[in-house]
This record gives sequence, C-alpha cells and structure tokens, in this order.
Amino acid sequence: MSQLEPTPRTTLKRGKDRGSYELDDIHGILDAGLACHLAFIANGSPHIIPTAYGRIGSTLYVHGAAANRALRALCNGEPACLSVTHIDGLVLARSAFHHSMNYRSVVLYGPMREVTDDEEWLAGLHAIIEHMVPGRWDDVRGPNAAETKRTMVLALEIDEGSAKVRSGPPVDDEEDYEIGCWAGVIPTPIHFAAPIDDPRLAPGIEVPSYVRNYRRAGRTPSRTNGGST
Amino acid sequence: MSQLEPTPRTTLKRGKDRGSYELDDIHGILDAGLACHLAFIANGSPHIIPTAYGRIGSTLYVHGAAANRALRALCNGEPACLSVTHIDGLVLARSAFHHSMNYRSVVLYGPMREVTDDEEWLAGLHAIIEHMVPGRWDDVRGPNAAETKRTMVLALEIDEGSAKVRSGPPVDDEEDYEIGCWAGVIPTPIHFAAPIDDPRLAPGIEVPSYVRNYRRAGRTPSRTNGGST
Repeated sequence: MSQLEPTPRTTLKRGKDRGSYELDDIHGILDAGLACHLAFIANGSPHIIPTAYGRIGSTLYVHGAAANRALRALCNGEPACLSVTHIDGLVLARSAFHHSMNYRSVVLYGPMREVTDDEEWLAGLHAIIEHMVPGRWDDVRGPNAAETKRTMVLALEIDEGSAKVRSGPPVDDEEDYEIGCWAGVIPTPIHFAAPIDDPRLAPGIEVPSYVRNYRRAGRTPSRTNGGST
Repeated sequence: MSQLEPTPRTTLKRGKDRGSYELDDIHGILDAGLACHLAFIANGSPHIIPTAYGRIGSTLYVHGAAANRALRALCNGEPACLSVTHIDGLVLARSAFHHSMNYRSVVLYGPMREVTDDEEWLAGLHAIIEHMVPGRWDDVRGPNAAETKRTMVLALEIDEGSAKVRSGPPVDDEEDYEIGCWAGVIPTPIHFAAPIDDPRLAPGIEVPSYVRNYRRAGRTPSRTNGGST
C-alpha cells in the first residue's frame, strides 16, 4: 500500500491540489513533528489534547496517565482525530485575501486502541521517546513497575487520513502585481538551539552527539523556503 | 475580569500546578501563536482544522471559505474546541518516564458565531492579518466584494478555557540523579528567518521594517530557556 483510500471524511473538498493521500508524504510529515493535537468527544463536546507521539510502520502511538479519564474513554472504540501541523512560513500577498501560511499538515482518523500487550506497550513507549530524541532510549533508565502501571499507551492505525501542503511564494490576482508593496515569505522553521544542561548535571558529563547534533527528519530547507530561489 | 471561571470541562485534573485561568496568561499564549487547531464534531466524528486566527479583546476570530460546510456547521451553535500550543523545548530526563516537553498551551471552548455585521467582519479579518504580521494591513489591498462574499469570519468568545505551561529543567526521581547520562533541555523556538522576496517582486521595492524586524509577542527567551541559567 503506497497511499490511503479517501473516505467521506477525508475526501478533500477545497485546495485539492494541496492534498495528498501518499503514505510517503503522510509519514514524512508525521516524522518531522514534535507534538500532535488529539481530538475526541466527551460529554457531547469536542476536546483537544496536545501530546507527544511516535510511529512504528503504519501505527502511531501516544501515551498518557492511566488515570486520565479522557484518554481511557478513547480506548472504547470512540472516534478520534489526530493532527500534526508544521507552519513553515508566513505568506505575505499584495491583497489581504491572499495572505496565507506555508504549512505541512496531516489529519488522521480512527478509533484508538489501548495497548495491553507488554511487548507492544514497551515498543510504543520506545517509539515515543525515540521520536522525540533519536538515540535517547539506550541512555536512560527504562520504566519500572510503578511507572508502567501509571502509563497508558494508545495506538492509532494510520489507515484513514490525508496530508495537505502549501509551499512557495504568494499567489496574487494578476492585476494586484502592480501594487507597490513588498510581497514574499517569512520562513518560520523551528530552531534547535544549544542544549541547556540540567542545573543538577554531575560534573564531567558531556552533551551526547545525538543532542549536540539534534535535527528533525523532513525539515528540509527546500520545503521551508517554499518555491522561491 | 482577570481570570476565567473553571467549568466541569476546563477543571484541571492532572498537572494542576501547570494550569492557569489567568486572562493575562491565556491572552499572552494566544498572542504568541501563529496558527490554532480548531476541533468540532461532524457526523459523529471529531475533526481538526489548523487555521490562522486573531484576537480583539476577549474575542477570537478565525476565517475560512464561506463554502466550507464544516465551518458553516460550526455557526449553528455547535460545540467547538480551539487550541494554541507552543513547544518551547524537549526535556531530557534520566528516566524514560520523566521525559517531557516545555510548552505553553491554551484550550478554549464554546459555540462559535458567524460574524454577519459588516463592521465586525472587517475588524475580524483585520485582526487575523495583523495577528500574523503586525503592520501589514495598511500596506495591502483590502477585500473586494467578491472576496467578502467568499469569506466567512467566525467568532469565539474567550470565556471558557485554561492555559497550561511547563518550563524549566527535567525533574527526575531523586535516586536517578546518580545516573551518569546527560540531562537537560533542547530549546525549540521558532526562528523567523530572513524574508524571501516574491520572485515577481518589482525592482526597487524594499523589505518593510515590520517584516525585516519580525518578532512575536510573548516568545521571551526566559520562557524558552526554561528554568535553568
């Protein structure tokens, strides 16, 4: 399978040319992200939780406190919607109407499943930590029994959803190109700044290379800079 | 009113010490953001739209295509949830369990209202453009009749919601401070890079100062850098 099948709720109605069902696009945008927004329904109201995530193949994992009633309710096959969005730039057009943002976003749908198998639970947590900082897991203490009991891992199969991407310069109405104002893009990439030592860091512990050289997959300058040269 | 009244769906259950109902905190986080995530229910499923927004006092405005059925459905008093999240840093603890992110987030609830008054419609659109790039509105062509007809503006009163903030270094279990791995924070601020001219920019048009010196309110280094020195 190289792309997802459109469904009634994922069929793009507007901006079709910006949309994609390609798994390469969807996985690439997911892998580049730091946090997702997870939406669900409780007491007749939509709710949003920003949270970390990780991916193994076609499965996305999130975690939370086992005591979190909202997360627990999500495991009962309730519908969920998960979004990852990168804002790559502000698009300044010559008209207010054509102002926009360059972005890459993925929206996924599906019921979520509580991970109860020990092996998959650990793999899910591993994926979340390694998604955040590749190379980190082997350096830290793994979850003990009490932490395992307090932590719920949820899985979402990546089988219904779509990606949407806007890149490049503003697109103005033809007659507006004569307007004498500046137009272009302000790129807004995430900057991974110099790491800050924990004030309680023991003397002599150096910053590991996976922290010193921290980068995210998928945040390539060619995307970030849009279509201009 | 200096803070919002907690309601059943905004009463913080976990991480109370990270939560706030103070309007100063909520407005500050909203004003620092570029895009929000808007969640609503359609056909029994939650949906998420990432979109731009702007604020005037205690009212948040978003806009979209008038033909957008999802947005139109939102105007019928349906419940909505809107979130703005800043990821300020990756928090690397000595145990997998205590890994976290530094963040500032706001979640708001409420029915949304379609703005039908001409004056408020224009004020809402103005707020959205000026939120994105303060100083921009006066330089560009305003909406014409056709654009006005095609654009819907929606309002959300900021009267139910909360903010949540995590900052500072990792917090490890006391016995884990002896583990010999590095711990600390990788700051992840947004970098506003040098503006990129539209390839069709006419010769001699300079980058205006509000673009050249682009900054966001609220993204202060002290927050971004967490609690360490």
